[in-house]
Amino acid sequence: MHLKPDDYGLIVALDIEDENYLLEVVKSTKDYVSAYKIGWPAVLSLGMEIISKITKYAPVICDFKIADIPEISEIIARKAFERGATGIIVHSFVGEYTLKRVVDVARSYNGMTFALIYMTHKGVESVFSKVYEVLVDIVKRVNTDGIVAPATRPHIIKDLRKTFNDKIIISPGVGAQGGDVVETLEAGANYIIVGRAIYYAYNPEDAARNFYEKILSWRNSKL
Amino acid sequence: MHLKPDDYGLIVALDIEDENYLLEVVKSTKDYVSAYKIGWPAVLSLGMEIISKITKYAPVICDFKIADIPEISEIIARKAFERGATGIIVHSFVGEYTLKRVVDVARSYNGMTFALIYMTHKGVESVFSKVYEVLVDIVKRVNTDGIVAPATRPHIIKDLRKTFNDKIIISPGVGAQGGDVVETLEAGANYIIVGRAIYYAYNPEDAARNFYEKILSWRNSKL
Repeated sequence: MHLKPDDYGLIVALDIEDENYLLEVVKSTKDYVSAYKIGWPAVLSLGMEIISKITKYAPVICDFKIADIPEISEIIARKAFERGATGIIVHSFVGEYTLKRVVDVARSYNGMTFALIYMTHKGVESVFSKVYEVLVDIVKRVNTDGIVAPATRPHIIKDLRKTFNDKIIISPGVGAQGGDVVETLEAGANYIIVGRAIYYAYNPEDAARNFYEKILSWRNSKL
Repeated sequence: MHLKPDDYGLIVALDIEDENYLLEVVKSTKDYVSAYKIGWPAVLSLGMEIISKITKYAPVICDFKIADIPEISEIIARKAFERGATGIIVHSFVGEYTLKRVVDVARSYNGMTFALIYMTHKGVESVFSKVYEVLVDIVKRVNTDGIVAPATRPHIIKDLRKTFNDKIIISPGVGAQGGDVVETLEAGANYIIVGRAIYYAYNPEDAARNFYEKILSWRNSKL
């Protein structure tokens, strides 16, 4: 059930604070997703138990954007994998010592680590453009399973794909944040992450199927 | 009970996963602390309820090192203040849009925001030194109540004190991570954050009193 560097698919972000609604979205979209991504809004509202409730349907990537010292980051990662998470997202910004600790914990649970190199939202260029090469070097040294690259900035995905030929690239920012499915895949992403455009849709199942079919038809056009 | 830019004191970090032990440390040290700092290890082990259990004894700063997009960061901050937190820590590297949202939420709860500008652990110089000026500018524009500066790097505290004359500086990294109380205060910090050197001490109360008295005697020497 693990994500693969030679595959393509849909990851649904579940930033939902209501458990019934969250599980309803999971049950109605599960046939179209490779994994669910959950972050602090769901965990702080529903507790860490929500992770294992979702893993009954599909793998879970914990988007905790870990950005702490190594000792604390290790604990955060352990807590996620103990609950059955398949992957965890960590900021490369906090350096190789934190990343190494998270990668070690992930491996001990047969889980995956995704390093965040560039964010999706506006106003981060002044910071991330200045340290981009440094962050790329950190991720090279630590060797995570994958990276997180912004669908809102396809040129960054393109560049990271050139550098990290064998890594899984997952790309948030499709839909509400403005990223486009085909453009993101063309740039080199493996998995498209969609949140609000699915869970706020009038019919989340239709919305998920629609994104899934777009990915499928792009992949088939490349065969 | 709020922290003040013209005051000095001790903040105890509670990165403890056992509730009985955590509350025991709180009860035995409360006479010597200005606030407690709790982070993900306590919250992921004990739930968000732990915040309000600690606020019975002293103000709580949530060290969530928020490093997310604005929409998600706002939710994280709201969850902390809803539970009675007095302050929240947010990374400045995620840009002014995230910081502004967190500051706005904090103000609506009469709470405080602390922007993290430089971290304590080794291996982060290659990243943080490159964007230091950019992060300082972001914090200037957003105007948080305070900043987090590393006791392990007193020259950074000194520089930030010059730039941010009116802000509360809280400094982690004293004790187990190698920072020194007097050196940190001399550099310009208001509140010293101590974790393991207190909660792993043979007698946490004695350890807290010892740190508290060091701060007091330094302050008195300056009157």
